[in-house]
Amino acid sequence: MAGFNVRSVLVTGANRGIGLELVKQFLEKSNPPEWVFATCRDPEGERAQQLKNLASRHPNLAIVALEATDPASIKAAATRVEEHLKSSGLNLLINNAGIMRLSTLESETPEDMSLVYATNVTGPLLVSQAFLPLLKKAAQGSPQPGLSCSKAAIVNMSSECGSIANLIALELVQVVSYRCSKASLNMLTKCQSLGYEGDGILSIAVHPGWVQTDMGSTGSHQAPLTVDVSVQGILNVLPTLSKKDNGAFVNWEGKVLPW
Amino acid sequence: MAGFNVRSVLVTGANRGIGLELVKQFLEKSNPPEWVFATCRDPEGERAQQLKNLASRHPNLAIVALEATDPASIKAAATRVEEHLKSSGLNLLINNAGIMRLSTLESETPEDMSLVYATNVTGPLLVSQAFLPLLKKAAQGSPQPGLSCSKAAIVNMSSECGSIANLIALELVQVVSYRCSKASLNMLTKCQSLGYEGDGILSIAVHPGWVQTDMGSTGSHQAPLTVDVSVQGILNVLPTLSKKDNGAFVNWEGKVLPW
Repeated sequence: MAGFNVRSVLVTGANRGIGLELVKQFLEKSNPPEWVFATCRDPEGERAQQLKNLASRHPNLAIVALEATDPASIKAAATRVEEHLKSSGLNLLINNAGIMRLSTLESETPEDMSLVYATNVTGPLLVSQAFLPLLKKAAQGSPQPGLSCSKAAIVNMSSECGSIANLIALELVQVVSYRCSKASLNMLTKCQSLGYEGDGILSIAVHPGWVQTDMGSTGSHQAPLTVDVSVQGILNVLPTLSKKDNGAFVNWEGKVLPW
Repeated sequence: MAGFNVRSVLVTGANRGIGLELVKQFLEKSNPPEWVFATCRDPEGERAQQLKNLASRHPNLAIVALEATDPASIKAAATRVEEHLKSSGLNLLINNAGIMRLSTLESETPEDMSLVYATNVTGPLLVSQAFLPLLKKAAQGSPQPGLSCSKAAIVNMSSECGSIANLIALELVQVVSYRCSKASLNMLTKCQSLGYEGDGILSIAVHPGWVQTDMGSTGSHQAPLTVDVSVQGILNVLPTLSKKDNGAFVNWEGKVLPW
């Protein structure tokens, strides 16, 4: 990660799990970003306490309210981030916020289908739309050729649960709406990779592994990975990505996953 | 298609385009089904006139109201179909109803994302849930071993627009919400194939080709296929499918498409 010089990064869903750990590890880098933007629904709430503790020690951490299913909230967040960045752009947007609901094919409800999709797919779409001007500005202001996560990138936190090819049994994790949303997020990533390549922006879908978080422990089996190891892996993989990886689906170890 | 003996088939979105043509070609078979159920939102409306004309000539055609985004409407439709079938099951469920909205990455709206997903993914999920007992009954009552479309099957009308692997340029058809929904429908199909295989039900995603319908002509280029040829192709492919194809994504010529 030594060569990973990101001036500014934004992480959605940053008050817990993988999002919180991403923020921590960015802040703890030997060359930390000038700005780490950590977004969550309610920065004043109890669930943002760990972020607030971090912010008290790290003046380069800004906690920003962002509800991924609310376009007005997303736009307000983009305005706040722009104020912090002044004339600079945003290098790295990590669409990490997501939800999962347990469900079988028979028990899945239209309400959960709708909510999970709105959060896990429409959310990243809208957040990317809102921060696109700042990502473009970062790309334009960068002397680096090609595409990279330290220049300008959208990282969508996907899941191997969204790999249609790798799905061989439903029983392990019964999450139909989640699987459908992550397959869709992978498609969105591919669309973004084609749509934004000309702007100098890299787009990538990342599977963080099956991680010991609130979400990862929802299934019937214990998740094998600690959040710490997963995020260390992700932060080792991101700086290795370039134009040839644009639009790909990789895991925390850098392995390409099939759609 | 000679060997394709389907006793009962249901087609959603059957009042126009590919759905209407499927109904026509099933009715015109030398060995037509005992029951063809054609569903649409408003059987009494002007847009169902062609179905009504068909029904006046074909007593084995039943037009049933079904709005794919309304769970109550779907349940009512399943009850009506069950009344027609009496003690028999439903062999073939074709989830054909779908919508498309033109949109770029920048112009895509949360409203369209939500509506397209509700119609194209949640709809087929809910319809399959509601008709599952009738599909199971058909499978249980069949002397045929293995899986087949004449025994019991769910056919989800997908689109190559939903193939993440085959997406190499956005410009040809700018339909982000549609692409995301069809990738998700492919995942749903894979889930259904695993979930229902034990019940003797085949699940398949079908790309009908780029067809000259209201929907297919929305893009900037003329669709190359006539509805007639596309549906002939689909009806030639369906009887060839067996257990080895369960959960696959095939086009109207039987070619397997990548996810």
